[in-house]
Amino acid sequence: MTASIHRLNADRPPSLDPMMALTAHDLNHVNAVILDRMQSDIPLIPELAGHLIAGGGKRMRPMLTLASARLLDYPGARHHRLAAAVEFIHTATLLHDDVVDGSDLRRGRRTANIIWGNPASVLVGDFLFSRSFELMVEDGSLKVLKILSNASAVIAEGEVNQLTAQRQVETTEERYLQIIGAKTAALFAAACRIAAVVAERGEGDEQALDAYGRNLGIAFQLVDDAIDYASDAQTMGKGVGDDFRDGKVTLPVILAHARGDADDRRFWRDAMQGHRVSDDDLAHATALLRSTGALDDTMACARLYGQRAIDALTRFPAGEARSAMVEAVAFAVSRAY
Amino acid sequence: MTASIHRLNADRPPSLDPMMALTAHDLNHVNAVILDRMQSDIPLIPELAGHLIAGGGKRMRPMLTLASARLLDYPGARHHRLAAAVEFIHTATLLHDDVVDGSDLRRGRRTANIIWGNPASVLVGDFLFSRSFELMVEDGSLKVLKILSNASAVIAEGEVNQLTAQRQVETTEERYLQIIGAKTAALFAAACRIAAVVAERGEGDEQALDAYGRNLGIAFQLVDDAIDYASDAQTMGKGVGDDFRDGKVTLPVILAHARGDADDRRFWRDAMQGHRVSDDDLAHATALLRSTGALDDTMACARLYGQRAIDALTRFPAGEARSAMVEAVAFAVSRAY
Repeated sequence: MTASIHRLNADRPPSLDPMMALTAHDLNHVNAVILDRMQSDIPLIPELAGHLIAGGGKRMRPMLTLASARLLDYPGARHHRLAAAVEFIHTATLLHDDVVDGSDLRRGRRTANIIWGNPASVLVGDFLFSRSFELMVEDGSLKVLKILSNASAVIAEGEVNQLTAQRQVETTEERYLQIIGAKTAALFAAACRIAAVVAERGEGDEQALDAYGRNLGIAFQLVDDAIDYASDAQTMGKGVGDDFRDGKVTLPVILAHARGDADDRRFWRDAMQGHRVSDDDLAHATALLRSTGALDDTMACARLYGQRAIDALTRFPAGEARSAMVEAVAFAVSRAY
Repeated sequence: MTASIHRLNADRPPSLDPMMALTAHDLNHVNAVILDRMQSDIPLIPELAGHLIAGGGKRMRPMLTLASARLLDYPGARHHRLAAAVEFIHTATLLHDDVVDGSDLRRGRRTANIIWGNPASVLVGDFLFSRSFELMVEDGSLKVLKILSNASAVIAEGEVNQLTAQRQVETTEERYLQIIGAKTAALFAAACRIAAVVAERGEGDEQALDAYGRNLGIAFQLVDDAIDYASDAQTMGKGVGDDFRDGKVTLPVILAHARGDADDRRFWRDAMQGHRVSDDDLAHATALLRSTGALDDTMACARLYGQRAIDALTRFPAGEARSAMVEAVAFAVSRAY
């Protein structure tokens, strides 16, 4: 664990609470925009969208827009609408992801595709995606539109890249980091960066906030990947071992496979092909992930990216916002696995 | 058939050729943009997108942008990029439609979802949709962005509305027109309207071109609905009776059901539920559609909207562009059924 994350954690475990407190008031405004703009004359749209939007998400991405705006002392209200646009892009992505993965649970609840079917999830995702662009157009900044349309294209590219790598246990660490950099980190980066645009800051601040979000996003995803093999199911809404049973080739698997002997590699190959789905198989997988140091090293990798996120904030003045943003990173990389 | 469509057809059958000739040069530029911007480092993206984009579509929507720009004597090149954006939105919609409908054929070829699977079709659709917004952002007109982001949201709403009405033979004619007004005509309208924006014309010209596209779109869809019951399969790429076997409640079915006796209504209800899929059933359906006048009246309705499209052009000067646009309508409503 790196020095500055250590220092921060000296008195109490790191928490997302400071960032939530920092953004709580603004987040009410964002939630009002979200509720207002997910409406439609077609009742299925708010019904389905509301299931996911009201379904216990942390609003991590809009919160990052709001915290970044606070960091820059932005006095206006444009970021409320834009944070809602970011959340709509995220929600659209989740709806399509669950169709692509055939998922049945998210955040501990049945997924929209299970309740309403794949067609409705695809189409309501499209609606929310279009609505997010309508919100950006209302804001009127071509720079914000450019950042978020580019992020959307990168996310979709990352998702296709992941699909192509599906079940391929020989995926390299480099390619995996490329995939999560696109499918997860691009929206984190954009969510932070647009705050610098509305606050009318220069390219330097834009890039710093982009780097903060991007590195946090990668750290966040790597910890999620490790947690999927945690023994404690309460840490996440989804069940432990979901990635394993779905044959998702994440960094822990890539490392354990690369470091394993011929038997281990055969096991991982079979597992990623979907032929090892029992509890015993999962226990064996977890044992391999621990004995090879794959989980520890995934977390170490997450902390490295986390530290980069923290370092990107050094150009901004110390204060409540910066502390909350640093602690959010520390929280992300300290979650149990 | 209304008077002005009649006049036009006096010497030869109406054709799309004049519009194709009018826009051929510009369309080469649009195709270059399309080819260039569907590229990606992820090979599956251009492969899948190219299958549909190169697959024999008429480029009807970009052609409408180009023809409208010619009608307004627009001398610039901005419309090339924007016409490509329109085609990307259309292609994304088709990819998602085929997933939603579980289609296996389009324009006489196997659909992308059959070749590459639903997940790839969903994600490449998302990519093209994002790319279309990137193209619009590069153009830099917030007005165009507003028109096309709004059209996209309306299309998605229309698709969800259609999904909700699926297999419901009691769908009203009014609701059906609302559905196709959203899912088909909104993009036709936007494709035409944006030409007035790049040509920097006033609201009057924008509205007129919007009305032309919207009414043409509705006419176009209604004729497609009738042709699905035509005896001549060569008219369209898809097979005759596809809508019938898929239980798609289109205007011909709505009219035949409403005008039928108890037996007929039971037949239509069963058919739309998917219980009447034999060739004999299709022959019976077609006989009912003809005996009740449902096909004739669907075509009459299409001609009504077609006439409105033509009337919307009266404010523009006569000439090659206007004639081509009028003849495109005449062609659309004169296709065999």
